[in-house]
Amino acid sequence: MSRRTFLASASCLPAAKVLALEPSKGDPLPSWNDAPAKRSLLGFVARITKDGSPDFIPTPERIAAFDNDGTLWPENPVPFQLAFALDTLKQRVAKDSTLADDAFVKAAAAGDFTTLLADQYKGLFHILGLTHAGMTTDEFNTGVDDWLKTARHPRFVRRYDECVYRPMLEVLAFLQANGFKTFIVSGGGADFMRVWSERVYGIPPEQIIGSTARTKFERRNGQPVLVKTTDHVFVDDKEGKPVAIHQYIGRRPVMCFGNSDGDKAMLEYTTIANPRPAFGLIVHHTDSDREFAYDAHPRSSGKLVEALAEADHRGWTIVDMKTDWNRVFTFEN
Amino acid sequence: MSRRTFLASASCLPAAKVLALEPSKGDPLPSWNDAPAKRSLLGFVARITKDGSPDFIPTPERIAAFDNDGTLWPENPVPFQLAFALDTLKQRVAKDSTLADDAFVKAAAAGDFTTLLADQYKGLFHILGLTHAGMTTDEFNTGVDDWLKTARHPRFVRRYDECVYRPMLEVLAFLQANGFKTFIVSGGGADFMRVWSERVYGIPPEQIIGSTARTKFERRNGQPVLVKTTDHVFVDDKEGKPVAIHQYIGRRPVMCFGNSDGDKAMLEYTTIANPRPAFGLIVHHTDSDREFAYDAHPRSSGKLVEALAEADHRGWTIVDMKTDWNRVFTFEN
Repeated sequence: MSRRTFLASASCLPAAKVLALEPSKGDPLPSWNDAPAKRSLLGFVARITKDGSPDFIPTPERIAAFDNDGTLWPENPVPFQLAFALDTLKQRVAKDSTLADDAFVKAAAAGDFTTLLADQYKGLFHILGLTHAGMTTDEFNTGVDDWLKTARHPRFVRRYDECVYRPMLEVLAFLQANGFKTFIVSGGGADFMRVWSERVYGIPPEQIIGSTARTKFERRNGQPVLVKTTDHVFVDDKEGKPVAIHQYIGRRPVMCFGNSDGDKAMLEYTTIANPRPAFGLIVHHTDSDREFAYDAHPRSSGKLVEALAEADHRGWTIVDMKTDWNRVFTFEN
Repeated sequence: MSRRTFLASASCLPAAKVLALEPSKGDPLPSWNDAPAKRSLLGFVARITKDGSPDFIPTPERIAAFDNDGTLWPENPVPFQLAFALDTLKQRVAKDSTLADDAFVKAAAAGDFTTLLADQYKGLFHILGLTHAGMTTDEFNTGVDDWLKTARHPRFVRRYDECVYRPMLEVLAFLQANGFKTFIVSGGGADFMRVWSERVYGIPPEQIIGSTARTKFERRNGQPVLVKTTDHVFVDDKEGKPVAIHQYIGRRPVMCFGNSDGDKAMLEYTTIANPRPAFGLIVHHTDSDREFAYDAHPRSSGKLVEALAEADHRGWTIVDMKTDWNRVFTFEN
């Protein structure tokens, strides 16, 4: 049974589309225009998979790290996991009216991000605690799955898990077909992504690295369960990304794909002084017609702007979404 | 290039034997006597790999978790990583004589484990900090590799990484050939195990889960490095094992192999109320002639004794090393 068949028939996914692509027989990257970014990517993979070449990389070392928000799917108007948290919070308030008096819950309901992000994201972590802790891991998974079924992206009016970049799905399938293990290394929650990553990206849960809090092993009704908590939070972003790559993968990737301030450290870790040939790529959001156009937001650390300026010197490939991609989303024809 | 060829030719492993086995063509478990434990293991794998059967488990869910110390290699007279720490400490003291005045260093030199383990293992963590932190991850890896080349197990007078259980190497190769991803879930340090796990067990670093402390991303000589610290220690033992399985793998294993107090929680998590068929196995150390014989040591929580008593009720398979294994070590003929 192929992965695709298995996923399509898995009973927990009644209506969700399998988006992960099978290996292509012709052009592996048909959504990419014939331009320097595409040629750079294809050229690197050709070079390191050629047996006997000095640049050959043995299969076990073919590790590729992908950021998620903004690299594989959009991060606007808000990161999709935040949309999940806000929708889930509304349901919680409807069931438990005492929550409506909570100052941060009020701020969330009003879309007041200034309040939520003040004091080192205190309100945001409070909201995440209310929506991501206290339940078993199975209960949380069901909540994410249920949300995906009903929620729609405000601009594209599609299920959130359909708003993924088709060109990047092609890259994932192409690398997987060339012996790569593809990992997500995202600031998003590992538990949130693992619910749909295999179906959407062809990436199994054990290759999802994200932000985490520690679960607690308990017995409920005589059965062992893991309960989500807000203890030992680890934010997998910026310098945390190479740290997490070491903790989870234990060796340096040879390919790295990112788009934002949070990805510069892992681009450096992948490509600077790597004894193997290495490849870095930045997805640059340049297309306000089909997606969004932005570099630095008001709270930006400026690391993306730095990374774009350094890209030529570092040999990093920049994707100009407007000119490099002939289609952006899986739902386009 | 096969994994074996790649590993044998990797320049960082000049003298180390590749022990991980290729899939067998005949009996996959020749070091196992034809007895209930072997039949139970073979029967489970036959049952869950039969396409169309109600017990069939799709490949992505074939996750097997193995404890390391006492399950894949011995843990006596001391855990091998502790032997590494004590040997490394001696080298450190030879170079830095001020260390010789440290009370815990003195205790370590005298083999005074009572002092090292008192006050919640305070002295032990101090020794581990001295030998496992302050260097880059690459420097640590080189240290482990160098130690393996020269250190010898006091009883078997072999490299430590040759003192592995041949019957368990057969199980690893057999499961890998049947589509399983084999993970180590050990109280030992992840960084320590990852140096040799691929060569010895055929398990790549990204499938090694162990105790960790967080590294720090830094620039040294202009190059990005990760420096080992003693911050955010996580001990991957007892209830920590299912917690780590969730954090790193994100789904429940269907097979679990352990031998000690520290493995009972993950045996429960794997086998109790798992919606898939599941298999648990305890390696019982019954052979003082060829290896060691023990159940509970003085600091035991008694969980192994409980697990052995519950095994029948839980359907866990017990391996009697004395009668089930016709050879124990890879170096026997």
